[in-house]
Amino acid sequence: MTTTQFDNVALTTQANVYFDGKCVSHSFRLADGTQKSVGVVLPAELTFNTGAAEIMECVGGACEYRLKGSDQWLRSQAGERFEIPANSSFDIRVSEAYHYICHYA
Amino acid sequence: MTTTQFDNVALTTQANVYFDGKCVSHSFRLADGTQKSVGVVLPAELTFNTGAAEIMECVGGACEYRLKGSDQWLRSQAGERFEIPANSSFDIRVSEAYHYICHYA
Repeated sequence: MTTTQFDNVALTTQANVYFDGKCVSHSFRLADGTQKSVGVVLPAELTFNTGAAEIMECVGGACEYRLKGSDQWLRSQAGERFEIPANSSFDIRVSEAYHYICHYA
Repeated sequence: MTTTQFDNVALTTQANVYFDGKCVSHSFRLADGTQKSVGVVLPAELTFNTGAAEIMECVGGACEYRLKGSDQWLRSQAGERFEIPANSSFDIRVSEAYHYICHYA
């Protein structure tokens, strides 16, 4: 099941732009103070580093990802999620737009 | 003054992607039902069509815009806004990222 909407959030108006716009997100905060972001990765192959652990939940499109230390590319599509440990990284490749929610674990 | 945050909104998780990602926005709804979006235009020169009239409020970066029927390019930067009539269009050119709120008038 895909999360299509978050209610009662505080939305930051300025976007986060990564990799010359290959990834764009907007940050928001739930009523309980939890920080998240919604974003999209456009067709590209990119490497993201994590500080805190993250859960990437796909809400549209699809990607393939490869966690640090793995040589296996896995697919994630709408309604699916994958976790990245803290202080790690993952490669992502996208051939159609990958729409996501980033949860900090 | 720049609007940095909207409180108590319902945020749509899937992005709107225009012009191969040269413009990305996320839609949201205020508690009173008003629809708006936050987005970013990356370096490009684009033409947008309006259905409803729109107010574009800049919250970061800058653009130059030219309303339909005008030959004058005008600059808009953080804290400034411009209006586009309904069923019209405007050209926009951006050399750094232009972050905006789109209000429907």
